[in-house]
Amino acid sequence: MSRIAEPFLAFLLALPLPLTAQSTTLRVERGPYRVSTVVPALQDPWSMAWLPTGEMLVTERPGRLRVVRNGSLQAEPIAGVPRVRYGGQGGLLDLAVHPDFASNRLIYLSYSKPSADRTQGTTAVVRGRLEGNRLEGVEEIFEARAWSTGEAHYGSRLAFDGNGYLFITVSDRAVDPLSVPREQHPAQDLSLHQGKVIRLHDDGRIPADNPFVARQDALPEIWTYGHRSLQGLAFHPETGELWATEHGAQGGDELNQIVRGGNYGWPVVGLGVQYGGAPIHASREREGMIQSVQHWTPSIGPSGLAIYSGDRFPEWSGSALVGGLAGLTMARVPLLKVDGENQVGRLERPGLMVGYGRIRDIRVGPDGYIYVALDDRPGGNPTPIVRLEPVAGAQ
Amino acid sequence: MSRIAEPFLAFLLALPLPLTAQSTTLRVERGPYRVSTVVPALQDPWSMAWLPTGEMLVTERPGRLRVVRNGSLQAEPIAGVPRVRYGGQGGLLDLAVHPDFASNRLIYLSYSKPSADRTQGTTAVVRGRLEGNRLEGVEEIFEARAWSTGEAHYGSRLAFDGNGYLFITVSDRAVDPLSVPREQHPAQDLSLHQGKVIRLHDDGRIPADNPFVARQDALPEIWTYGHRSLQGLAFHPETGELWATEHGAQGGDELNQIVRGGNYGWPVVGLGVQYGGAPIHASREREGMIQSVQHWTPSIGPSGLAIYSGDRFPEWSGSALVGGLAGLTMARVPLLKVDGENQVGRLERPGLMVGYGRIRDIRVGPDGYIYVALDDRPGGNPTPIVRLEPVAGAQ
Repeated sequence: MSRIAEPFLAFLLALPLPLTAQSTTLRVERGPYRVSTVVPALQDPWSMAWLPTGEMLVTERPGRLRVVRNGSLQAEPIAGVPRVRYGGQGGLLDLAVHPDFASNRLIYLSYSKPSADRTQGTTAVVRGRLEGNRLEGVEEIFEARAWSTGEAHYGSRLAFDGNGYLFITVSDRAVDPLSVPREQHPAQDLSLHQGKVIRLHDDGRIPADNPFVARQDALPEIWTYGHRSLQGLAFHPETGELWATEHGAQGGDELNQIVRGGNYGWPVVGLGVQYGGAPIHASREREGMIQSVQHWTPSIGPSGLAIYSGDRFPEWSGSALVGGLAGLTMARVPLLKVDGENQVGRLERPGLMVGYGRIRDIRVGPDGYIYVALDDRPGGNPTPIVRLEPVAGAQ
Repeated sequence: MSRIAEPFLAFLLALPLPLTAQSTTLRVERGPYRVSTVVPALQDPWSMAWLPTGEMLVTERPGRLRVVRNGSLQAEPIAGVPRVRYGGQGGLLDLAVHPDFASNRLIYLSYSKPSADRTQGTTAVVRGRLEGNRLEGVEEIFEARAWSTGEAHYGSRLAFDGNGYLFITVSDRAVDPLSVPREQHPAQDLSLHQGKVIRLHDDGRIPADNPFVARQDALPEIWTYGHRSLQGLAFHPETGELWATEHGAQGGDELNQIVRGGNYGWPVVGLGVQYGGAPIHASREREGMIQSVQHWTPSIGPSGLAIYSGDRFPEWSGSALVGGLAGLTMARVPLLKVDGENQVGRLERPGLMVGYGRIRDIRVGPDGYIYVALDDRPGGNPTPIVRLEPVAGAQ
């Protein structure tokens, strides 16, 4: 290859092979990795999780919970999954395995729940015991007070901390930010669940130390508020901090550290504008409203979030890996702590996973590889899950 | 090509051919264009301009002014160019042709001017009459009070408005934003030229209606202040407004409309951080400091700026075309005016000119094609100027 072409090597090698091919190699600043297909053909995969026994579970948004065993997608979905409201951004969404799964076999699912007359939907969470190929004893542990006829901004990521608490994101159901005075938007209204992060015991009970339990005008499940559309949620494996990605509209996407009782400002403050360009926010900042640690303008459409820890990519340890829908890449955000304050290192250009299209979810597998669910292909075509593997000896 | 690969077509066709090849085709949302090589091999091209007789002039940063006549780069540079301080970001920089060139034959050049002892440099502008292959009567019309031993952030774009005034960008010479209290940074100091847009008559005289002429503590050449590194400057061909691109540090790149007397905030307010992540700004906004119309975080490294007008790409009319250095793309920013306020439409992903590396300058030629000077290739390899042409019949 001639010298002049070298700067373009990253692009050349990023060229996706037909997705049935096994792998291609891509050079990046911090060393090369290989993208391998894990599951070639799913329909709208949305979330991935692993059982202690090694199986990978995958949600398909139309309402199926799938099992990948020994690298092979099992034909039969797991039974017992609730009926979902599939459409728009809704359907079967996130998936979490209880930290004590080995003893209690509990699986948690978030989804778009239809109303009895099927005209509206909200975000709900169920749990059930995985027995054979069926969820048993399925019970609802949370139903958001966030009903809407709309099919956008449900949330709804799930994450367990190290103390048995379950965190759930509920998005703002796409309520027009200017339909009411900004301070009265549902995301700012503590009597509603729109635009909130929720904290519960693993059985749905409300923890006595939640920040708003003593307030008569607030729903006690609320942990933080002032969010728009939260599609990534992860605990930092080293620090135990909770982090979330949040979609802005046109610009103003965010990566936030989620801290007890925090107001993240939507739609009062922020850095984006309405699709098309009209203003949204009263200002860029306000006392008492938390600013993001990293923001993206123009938008990347931040989806799944993982914070890397593992020995496959030691140089990426402590980096947030943020999936981009509109951005068509994975962003790696080096998270730093300086005098107790969050800072971020420089983001590499053009990002990781260039050429693979929209990215829906990112998880670090128990094997230390980085698993990536691509977003639904146009025309209902099958969608793969791939993984990033270091290229041996070339680091 | 199989259906599943279709979303990737843009990437596939964006793959740069070896740069000696004549063209490749790239599909984008708004229609296809072709990238053709105009001049295959220059050294650090920085600016392009056209004479009424059709020749294209090009500055090469080491200090050469070149001519492209009938598509052919002339071997002999134009003589009479001043000695430049070539190094870092400095050298021979921008180029402007006087609006009345046909009668006065005046060419304007901005450059990094060495001090007499060659230990320091500043930004300066000369003009001279193009006679044959030589600039005659070369005279300095501006020397910035912005001396520094450093080799970064000189500016220095040039643009004539429709009334014979010349605008010049002078950047902040990379003075550490936290080396002094933010409000006393040179970019905020009206007694210095760092971080300013300058407005002069075409012969260097100071217009009597410049905003700070009456202030004893201010340099009268100043038109606007509070800038960091301004590497793109263009008049809007329809509205006559002046626009500029500005580099942030890590994040916080800007596209600004430049209005008389405005303070653009650097380093008091902004949206970026120091390289590495440390905070810079006191806040994100402040009364009396103008906010950008479009901002970029993470940075794209905005370089040359053109605002499109022409019949080759009618759908791009009124769009700002912003070169990205670090961003490795050209951004198209649809500029809108709603009730007299600036708004921007949505930016396409992944941008234009993906796969061509860093972009230095963008100009709309008299033929309506979009000319793009790529940035210096690694290792001193030759650098091309290319142009975007619509693909006939495929719009």
